[in-house]
Amino acid sequence: MAPPSAAAAQSAFDPGLHHAHDSASCPFCRIAVIYGPYDPADPPAAESDALNPDASAPNPATFVVLSTPLLVAFLDIMPLSRGHVLLCPREHRPKLTDVTAAEAQEMGGYLRVLSAAVAQATGVRDWNVVQNNGAAAAQVVPHCHFHIIPRPELRDKRSERFTATMFGRGTREDLDEDEAAPLAERIREAVAELLHGEAPPDSSKPKL
Amino acid sequence: MAPPSAAAAQSAFDPGLHHAHDSASCPFCRIAVIYGPYDPADPPAAESDALNPDASAPNPATFVVLSTPLLVAFLDIMPLSRGHVLLCPREHRPKLTDVTAAEAQEMGGYLRVLSAAVAQATGVRDWNVVQNNGAAAAQVVPHCHFHIIPRPELRDKRSERFTATMFGRGTREDLDEDEAAPLAERIREAVAELLHGEAPPDSSKPKL
Repeated sequence: MAPPSAAAAQSAFDPGLHHAHDSASCPFCRIAVIYGPYDPADPPAAESDALNPDASAPNPATFVVLSTPLLVAFLDIMPLSRGHVLLCPREHRPKLTDVTAAEAQEMGGYLRVLSAAVAQATGVRDWNVVQNNGAAAAQVVPHCHFHIIPRPELRDKRSERFTATMFGRGTREDLDEDEAAPLAERIREAVAELLHGEAPPDSSKPKL
Repeated sequence: MAPPSAAAAQSAFDPGLHHAHDSASCPFCRIAVIYGPYDPADPPAAESDALNPDASAPNPATFVVLSTPLLVAFLDIMPLSRGHVLLCPREHRPKLTDVTAAEAQEMGGYLRVLSAAVAQATGVRDWNVVQNNGAAAAQVVPHCHFHIIPRPELRDKRSERFTATMFGRGTREDLDEDEAAPLAERIREAVAELLHGEAPPDSSKPKL
């Protein structure tokens, strides 16, 4: 077979390409800088300084649901449904191919944990995980992020609009900040409970 | 805050719930049984027995692009675009919350590798990663799987149909088996090249 094209090879696995300029204007980098890591199995209290930074806080408010040395997750400010969460690496990585192997593995692990936590906090049992790379794929913020989007049962018409809106068309409503604070707290606490309930990694591996 | 509801807690992280009956009729379990693991950094030749099992092979043909002790990935038999790949755990896990922590982390790691490999093999630089959980979220096969879907630039009309079709409406075309064989080979080889080019895990971690 022919070797992969030079253009393709160039952009695969290249976390070093991006200029400081990109991250200076990136809203997700700003969140990552303001909200430091905490132990997800022992989250700070809702009223703590860690979750309520001072005047440097972004506007609109950010409702963090997970924060580790590598990753940060928070409620989408224009949710497609209640409990719509974004999970991203702390560092500025435009596409999934720009993240490190360690970041990718940790995102995979926490997609599972956050999915369960969001389902517990919202009571909605079905959900989509979506991650868009590039303009043709409807990526809006050029900092790699996974969406976790609860899917309550909807009548057909609303369901169609939901799907169109997920990929950048149609209207989305702003997050209700009064509802968001207790919801984010429930998600953080559900993450902690789920991590406490986990068997040690070795015994959870299927025998293959 | 109120504790999570019993119903919600029951289905989180519960890989043991599912009966043999479910996996016996599952097309992805069948693929996982027929196609055993190989070393992704040293894939078998296209004409090898490992990739061309005998009469027990499923119909339509399966074009495997990755196979590890925990995971298997293959071309979607009704692709939304050329290079549309599915990645799933070998074991029957209905939703993302049913997979083990080890499976979730490995899926995260290989989503990154397969994304780069599919981009190299197809030349398409934008793509979606989608994973649907439950009927309300348009999950069709009840065995957890991630879609990797290249997104060539499309005119508006085709793009709208693409999005609708991704979530279960509209028509999808069958995989062209003559095109699929060399495409799957290019993806397997790109995976191997990418894994060879990786720095050891420790040095790839960002300093945080």
